[in-house]
Amino acid sequence: MQPGDTYSDRCPTRLILDRVGDKWAVLILGLLAEQPTRFNQLRRTIKGISQKMLSQTLKSLERDGLVKRRAIATVPVTVEYSITPLGRTLAQAVDPLRLWAEGNVKEVLAAQRRYDQSMEKTARVA
Amino acid sequence: MQPGDTYSDRCPTRLILDRVGDKWAVLILGLLAEQPTRFNQLRRTIKGISQKMLSQTLKSLERDGLVKRRAIATVPVTVEYSITPLGRTLAQAVDPLRLWAEGNVKEVLAAQRRYDQSMEKTARVA
Repeated sequence: MQPGDTYSDRCPTRLILDRVGDKWAVLILGLLAEQPTRFNQLRRTIKGISQKMLSQTLKSLERDGLVKRRAIATVPVTVEYSITPLGRTLAQAVDPLRLWAEGNVKEVLAAQRRYDQSMEKTARVA
Repeated sequence: MQPGDTYSDRCPTRLILDRVGDKWAVLILGLLAEQPTRFNQLRRTIKGISQKMLSQTLKSLERDGLVKRRAIATVPVTVEYSITPLGRTLAQAVDPLRLWAEGNVKEVLAAQRRYDQSMEKTARVA
């Protein structure tokens, strides 16, 4: 096995692709790259994420050294998350992907419609 | 909703992040960006992918307009996949992420060890 050979199933790089290929992780890192944010604020901003999923994803990101958790001694305690220097380099690497998704969404949806129509036609002929 | 607001759950950009955040899709696009490749060759190169998963992922990528499928009239028929111009722009957008994963795998694994050790310590104290 080559070090860093993502095509080998024994390469730990594969584990990282799993993590950074996670939609929620990408969205959370994108927000934290702008500013440290409290748990409840993250939950409100990222539509459709459950409390459990947000909590799990933040824990994985913290374990990977990509975000930092800080408990603030308010009543009740509030928890704030911030991005680490390592996390910031990842957020920068993810950015072209997010921009691509935003810029090409129409073209992909059009391709999907064409594909589905051609499949329907094939089904009718068969 | 803003067009292309990935933080909204009604935004189709979210669907695309799902797709391009898929580890197998990233690996397949990376290979096809180099040269058109036959199904069986893809399967041999991407360790750990099942025939079913490869087949499903290729179908989704074709539906998204990112890869093109070509049946070659050999006996038995062989099927070759190539990347489309749209797929090539995505492969380029994914590249920094792949490079990040390859370059930072050691640092992430070290962070995971530190996190797990600190969790063990906390568990012992509690």
